[in-house]
Amino acid sequence: MTVKQLSLPELADACVRLGVPGVGLWRAPVQSYGVEATARLVRDAGLTVTTLCRGGFFTAIDPAEREQAVADNRRAIDEAATLGTDTLVLVSGGLPAGSRDLHGARERIADALAELGPYAEEHGVRLAIEPLHPMYAADRCVVSTLAQALDLAERFPAHQVGVAVDTYHIWWDDRAPAQIARAGATGRIHTFQLADWTTPLPEGVLNGRGQIGDGSIDMREWKGYVEAAGYTGPIEIELFNEGLWARDGREVLAETAERFVTYVAG
Amino acid sequence: MTVKQLSLPELADACVRLGVPGVGLWRAPVQSYGVEATARLVRDAGLTVTTLCRGGFFTAIDPAEREQAVADNRRAIDEAATLGTDTLVLVSGGLPAGSRDLHGARERIADALAELGPYAEEHGVRLAIEPLHPMYAADRCVVSTLAQALDLAERFPAHQVGVAVDTYHIWWDDRAPAQIARAGATGRIHTFQLADWTTPLPEGVLNGRGQIGDGSIDMREWKGYVEAAGYTGPIEIELFNEGLWARDGREVLAETAERFVTYVAG
Repeated sequence: MTVKQLSLPELADACVRLGVPGVGLWRAPVQSYGVEATARLVRDAGLTVTTLCRGGFFTAIDPAEREQAVADNRRAIDEAATLGTDTLVLVSGGLPAGSRDLHGARERIADALAELGPYAEEHGVRLAIEPLHPMYAADRCVVSTLAQALDLAERFPAHQVGVAVDTYHIWWDDRAPAQIARAGATGRIHTFQLADWTTPLPEGVLNGRGQIGDGSIDMREWKGYVEAAGYTGPIEIELFNEGLWARDGREVLAETAERFVTYVAG
Repeated sequence: MTVKQLSLPELADACVRLGVPGVGLWRAPVQSYGVEATARLVRDAGLTVTTLCRGGFFTAIDPAEREQAVADNRRAIDEAATLGTDTLVLVSGGLPAGSRDLHGARERIADALAELGPYAEEHGVRLAIEPLHPMYAADRCVVSTLAQALDLAERFPAHQVGVAVDTYHIWWDDRAPAQIARAGATGRIHTFQLADWTTPLPEGVLNGRGQIGDGSIDMREWKGYVEAAGYTGPIEIELFNEGLWARDGREVLAETAERFVTYVAG
């Protein structure tokens, strides 16, 4: 998503040239290119698929909508398995129109996880609940903290449900380091993602994630927390940023790799 | 601030006509009108000043800037005393330019409170740390949760330092109800403010606070929490909203009073 202006073949080629060993993919471009074809493309390039984004949107009250969401998540699990990644990232969903019941919405997420966890396990895929920044609580994700995500995840086995740790969403939270330790202790850190926090936020607050190093987040500090919690998996950089999307994708990818070396690695 | 398009005499008159018994004031319009003159105006109208907004901005690293901030907060305390309100609301300040150290910034707030607490007490004024929504952590307020605000406040006597509970900033937080109880148990709920959460957020996310009833927050639920915690003080409605500011101020005030009756009172 960081360089969504690149086609999947361009992306694979650019990753290989830069020595980037793995890539997190989003469902829409994968579906357009073809799931099998993407799996082949990435495999032939020698890349791993770190995660697939995204399942979720479990908070509907209407039974038909709920069943549709669960069915779509089964397809997402199938796609993840075909791509050879073991992790499907979940954006859990916001409040249904007219509802003010955060607690009820969170319980409906648990209900959906109970249905999907065993199906994911059968396909060798783990579900990663991603807490989103509290500014998305109404319209995208009622799971706003790592603590809330773990409260949900811990109802299920760790090989079925864990969490996605993304600096952009949790950097403000003084409880997050302890929650990362909690997640690590039960093997529930299913991915670690980076984006920097820059202001002012754009209208709608979706596409203002900062390039690594441009903002307020100490990336090495957070990397230290997940490493101390035993995490040894990939580190993903996921930027939604209109400014980066308007530039040449290969240049943005090269810049991002440089920023990784400067602000994260070592 | 909800009807900043009204002059202070218009505001006082409109409050009296609507039967609104008290008003929270902001420093800039009070300074323009004159602090003594405002005190007289409000007193003559039979209104109480519920709180003065705002002091704070304590996070500068530069010693001269810090001293300037403390001096300005002493003036704010003087103004609050002159206006006859017992509460000065604090917006604590964001990260200094180039800093990524949230913990250090929070400690500098504690240092400033230690200087200002006794001065406030001498003037019969309580300081109310307002946790701001985590989306303001970088640029306005590194105190993002009621728990963080209370961790700071509890280093001082409750009659010196407490918290401001504002639904807009804490509604997403499943720990907030327990923190309201914690605040109430030590007499630290110094004011209770309402605004509703509406989306999409505007650019810069400052002026998108929703009219009561238009958004995702169950106001009676939060009123229940502060009442259960023993709070019997005023309930303030504080909306920063370009749409409301563009309308006739008296009409907006009347609408807000109606919304209070429909969504909050009783």
